[in-house]
Order: sequence, then C-alpha cells, then structure tokens
Amino acid sequence: MLIKKVFIMRIKRSILAVLATILLLNHPVGFAASQWRQLDASNTVLMTLPYGKVVVELAPNVAPNHVKQFKQLIKKGFYNGNKFYRVIDGFVAQAGPDERHDNAPELAIESEWTPAKNWSFMGVQNDDLFAPQTGFLNGFPVGYSAKENKAWLTHCPGMLAMARGNAADSGSSHFYFTIGQAPRYLDRIMTVFGRVVYGMNTIQAIKRTATIAGEPPVSAKFFTPIITMQMMSDVPKNEQIIVEVEDTSSDKFKAKLAARRDRKSAFFYKKPPQVLDICQVPVLSRLVKSK
Amino acid sequence: MLIKKVFIMRIKRSILAVLATILLLNHPVGFAASQWRQLDASNTVLMTLPYGKVVVELAPNVAPNHVKQFKQLIKKGFYNGNKFYRVIDGFVAQAGPDERHDNAPELAIESEWTPAKNWSFMGVQNDDLFAPQTGFLNGFPVGYSAKENKAWLTHCPGMLAMARGNAADSGSSHFYFTIGQAPRYLDRIMTVFGRVVYGMNTIQAIKRTATIAGEPPVSAKFFTPIITMQMMSDVPKNEQIIVEVEDTSSDKFKAKLAARRDRKSAFFYKKPPQVLDICQVPVLSRLVKSK
Repeated sequence: MLIKKVFIMRIKRSILAVLATILLLNHPVGFAASQWRQLDASNTVLMTLPYGKVVVELAPNVAPNHVKQFKQLIKKGFYNGNKFYRVIDGFVAQAGPDERHDNAPELAIESEWTPAKNWSFMGVQNDDLFAPQTGFLNGFPVGYSAKENKAWLTHCPGMLAMARGNAADSGSSHFYFTIGQAPRYLDRIMTVFGRVVYGMNTIQAIKRTATIAGEPPVSAKFFTPIITMQMMSDVPKNEQIIVEVEDTSSDKFKAKLAARRDRKSAFFYKKPPQVLDICQVPVLSRLVKSK
Repeated sequence: MLIKKVFIMRIKRSILAVLATILLLNHPVGFAASQWRQLDASNTVLMTLPYGKVVVELAPNVAPNHVKQFKQLIKKGFYNGNKFYRVIDGFVAQAGPDERHDNAPELAIESEWTPAKNWSFMGVQNDDLFAPQTGFLNGFPVGYSAKENKAWLTHCPGMLAMARGNAADSGSSHFYFTIGQAPRYLDRIMTVFGRVVYGMNTIQAIKRTATIAGEPPVSAKFFTPIITMQMMSDVPKNEQIIVEVEDTSSDKFKAKLAARRDRKSAFFYKKPPQVLDICQVPVLSRLVKSK
C-alpha cells in the first residue's frame, strides 16, 4: 500500500493531496485499526533544535545505567547549548559538551544483555547478515544470538547511542544518532539506549560538519546547537508532544511484517526475496492530542 | 580510522579542528594515495536545489535507454521547476512534472542485466540478505546471481531510479532518490540508473511531504523545487563542479574493503562479524579544481 502510493505518478497531485487528507483523517498512516502504545513521559526526551522538535524514547530495560545518567544530565540542563560537532552524512550526528572534562562519570558498557529464560520478542528475520536473529522488542530493533543467549539493540537509522573512547567502559555523556544506512558493525560494542520516535526529519536537518576532500572545513560557528533537552515529564502539559508508537508485539504488527515479507500488491510484478532487513521495517508513530 | 575519529570525545574540539584541517590538507579523506576516477561531464548531472547543488553520475552501461531519455529531458529543460512532491523520510524523495501526461515515452524496464562472460566486479559480500553476491561496478553498488547470471544496481542510499506505475514498462520521467535505509526489496523491479556523488546532504534537506498521523498535511507550496537540472557538460566551465570518485576496481579500494571487514583499530575491543553491507561501504568523492 505504502509503496504503491509512493510510485503512483499518473494521478494529478491535487487529487493525491485530497486522497491523502481523507486517508489521514480516517486511518492511522498506512493501515487501519493498528494497535498503538503510548509513551511514558518520564522515559521520553524532548530535544529542541533550531529546525524543530525531536522526541526520543529511552530504553531503560536494556541500558538502565546509561538511561539513568542521561536523564540526570538532562534534568540538570547539561545538554542545553551543546552542539552537534561531528556530523557525517549517512553515518552519525554526534553531540556533547565542549569541555575536555564533562564531569559525568564513565559508565560500564551496556551494549548487549543476557535475556531471561522466558523472554520473547517479535521475530523479523533469521540469518540476518549481522545477527542470527532479528526482531522488535517494545518498538526497538534487536539482534539475538540463541547460541550465546545474548541480545542487543541494532544501529538502525534514528537510534540513540553513547559515544565512547577506545575503552569499552568509557562512555559518559557524548551521544550520537545514526542518520544513514545502519552501521551494524557497531552493534554489540556501543551502548544503544534510545530511539527517535518523532522528528527524524529534524535530525536529518542537523548541519553536517564533515566535508569531502577539496571542500573547506565547516566552521564551528555553524554547528547545530541543542536549544534545550528536557524530559517530557518536565515540559508544561500544553507544550508536550504526545506520541504513540506501533505496538510491535501486536497481531497487527505481525500482520504488517508478513505483508512486507510477501508483497501482494500488483506493483510487485516480480516478487522480492521473502526476507526483511530489521532496519528497513518502519515502526510508525502518531501524534495524539495532549490531555 | 574514520570510526575512531568519530567517537573520540576527550580532546578539545579546537584541537580536533586543527587536526582535521591538517589531515584534509595532506590526504584525501580517510586514507592517503587512493586511486580516483574523474567523471565524464557528459554523463554527469548538476541539479540545483534551493539548499545547494547535487551531482549525479549516470549509469548508461546499465540502463542505456533510461539514461538516454533522462539526458534528453534534461537538455530540454524538462525538469526545471519540477517539485519533489513525494518525500518520505528514511525512504525516497520523488520528483517529476506536474501534469498528468508528461509527454515522455514509457520505457521498457532496465532493472537488471545479463552480464557478458568476461564481466567482473569488485566483490564485497556473499550471501547478502537480498543477493547471492554483492559488489561494486564503476562505483555503483551491484547485486549478482551467478545461478541466474543476472546483475542489478542495488537501492543503497543516494541512488537515482525511475518511478513507474504498476506495469514494469511504465517509467518515463518521474524519478526518486533513496534517502534512508536501503529499500532492497525494490531491487530488480525498478530501473536504478544513477548515483549521487556530491551533495547528499542537500538531498537530505529536501522538504518531507509525508507527515505522520495527527499532523496536518504539508501544503504543496512548501514542496522543494528543482531550480535547474543540467548536464554538467552544458554548464559553463567556471560553474562546473568537478568530482572524482574512488575507483572501486583499484587495489586501494580492495584494501579498504578488507580493512572494513577485519577491523584492526583498538576501538573495536570486540570485533564485529566479518561481513559487509554493500550499502554501508562509502564510495568517497573529492572535489578537484576545474581546469
């Protein structure tokens, strides 16, 4: 359905716009009657950039100490005025404080975990290039090795992770968002602890700091600043952005996976391989009115 | 090297900026003494958007009829003033003329080809999720099935492809750039015929037209226009952007692949799987002075 709409080109745009509006009024994006999960405001970050607002859901169950410290820093106003100083198109947008010593304690890495015996996730693909299994856990993309009984969040576009030095346990406050083809080779060696659920287009607007050979470097005065970073629960009610995300454990989501795996639309005159790239399955969000 | 630099965070930014400048002055990005290939201006497109300029290399050997028609349309000024009317973050940015009938003939699809017996490409990965083999051919990412003896360009970020209706042979003038995690399920059923070699950050700046549920639709008056689209060979010499790209058939590039496959840097305290995602191997560009 999504794809079909994307490549239709013989209908006047005006008609498309009307159709799109009708669809939006009647249904959540792309399919009706989906199941949605509301986010916990105390576990959700509102980052304000010059170009717009970004909402990030944190993953305390996966990276409890990183999330705890990140929240503490946010509540202190630590990131307000920080800049995205290392931004490489197609790779990462990295931000952090300007000082050599940022006074945030270094953390033991939380790049993977040992699942409990009764754990389950929504399976997406076996024998993925980078993981024996992939799937979703509470909307987050995960890799899993049953043999090792280890699971990890994967570096799909829009994931939030802690930067670090060479030592595994050296992350503290500098962080990055992935902004291009998933750098999956960083899976299991970086602490991924959040996911952009609103405003990925705003993340993509962050000024690139890396240039190619032959171009002058980008002056630091053009680096994108973080105007404010707040926990959503600390934002006045009338300024909150209330986001719901697809419940990736729902039957509706399972059906969506099946439909993406086995494309029925006439657009697919020749069917693609029945496989799914975990990072190419969108987990949709929707805005709801604040209460 | 690239990665190590990305995640370094304990050195003052001022020092980093100086180091970066020194590196840029002495070496092409990332590694010294690479082999570079200059582009043929008569096979290169200059697209001017409100946010900057984009250079696209076409693939006439892969999709001769699509490239031929695209060039003819460009030379007529066909795309000047066209808008990116369907732009979905993380997926595609699609543009084309406003009219129902664009007067460009429909083309037989060129989504894959049958390689000659003596063909070769720079191999990257066997048993990729979507292809038996992947690799590079003249800087373009390809998939290959030896069993079928078919090859195709893959939908990596920054690829240019022709849109179409449901019928395979219905593409004519509407085109799209891929702007997110590679939608590889479109491989072999869409005609991919070019690659962004400069200005991918400008492509990422294109105004998204798709919103999520709960947001108002984007008015067509905000859609990003193509100011001009020209063949580089038709651009006055002093306004040309001369781009060279890594020669993906070179030994230097082969060594780069090997280094990405087997990470030696201390940053990788635990080594990733020795596999490569064809869409996550950057083929670098550099600017050279016009002659």
